[in-house]
Amino acid sequence: MYFTSIKKTKEEKTRSGVSVWWLLSEEIGVPNFELRYFEFGKGMHTSYGSHPWEHEVFVVRGQGVVKGKNLEKKVKVGDAIYIASNEEHQFLNYQDEPLCFVCVIPKGAEKKTKK
Amino acid sequence: MYFTSIKKTKEEKTRSGVSVWWLLSEEIGVPNFELRYFEFGKGMHTSYGSHPWEHEVFVVRGQGVVKGKNLEKKVKVGDAIYIASNEEHQFLNYQDEPLCFVCVIPKGAEKKTKK
Repeated sequence: MYFTSIKKTKEEKTRSGVSVWWLLSEEIGVPNFELRYFEFGKGMHTSYGSHPWEHEVFVVRGQGVVKGKNLEKKVKVGDAIYIASNEEHQFLNYQDEPLCFVCVIPKGAEKKTKK
Repeated sequence: MYFTSIKKTKEEKTRSGVSVWWLLSEEIGVPNFELRYFEFGKGMHTSYGSHPWEHEVFVVRGQGVVKGKNLEKKVKVGDAIYIASNEEHQFLNYQDEPLCFVCVIPKGAEKKTKK
């Protein structure tokens, strides 16, 4: 077994300035999928786009908006979102409270952002 | 995209009486892994055992203990745990607050509990 936490994991930043913690990544030997934690404040968002792999998301704190092609939907704590491969998507936070979610992807689909 | 929540998903019970919500399961077409949400109260635990697939866990609320072979470790909100295939494991809650976590598994590895 392998134990870690947000505090014990290095905080990284995406191109759009969003904080990401790669909690369970291929570096520790996961065989199939990687689990990351995202957090960002008011007025911030992830980049809009698509890629050939899926996301499975669970909202841990706050509330936000998910935008897609002809779609805009509010999400909040306790919500789960499945984003299929090649679906355009973006997460935005308009609230004072940080938006925090877990996002799982197939192993090796994305690479950690280089600082 | 597919949106759901704990409230919109059917609560199921494991053999040990633990509540599980299969938020993103193969039923909705996920290609690689399934995301479930677990919750249980004081004095409750998941069953002790192992199986030939991994778990990736993120603790969303409360605190608990993870037991394994010659291992006992406290976990709390913000912790992530990787349990490799065939590793013995069990989650226990000794606190008044419910223990809640997300647990991701390879698609089809487990089946929903029949009520």
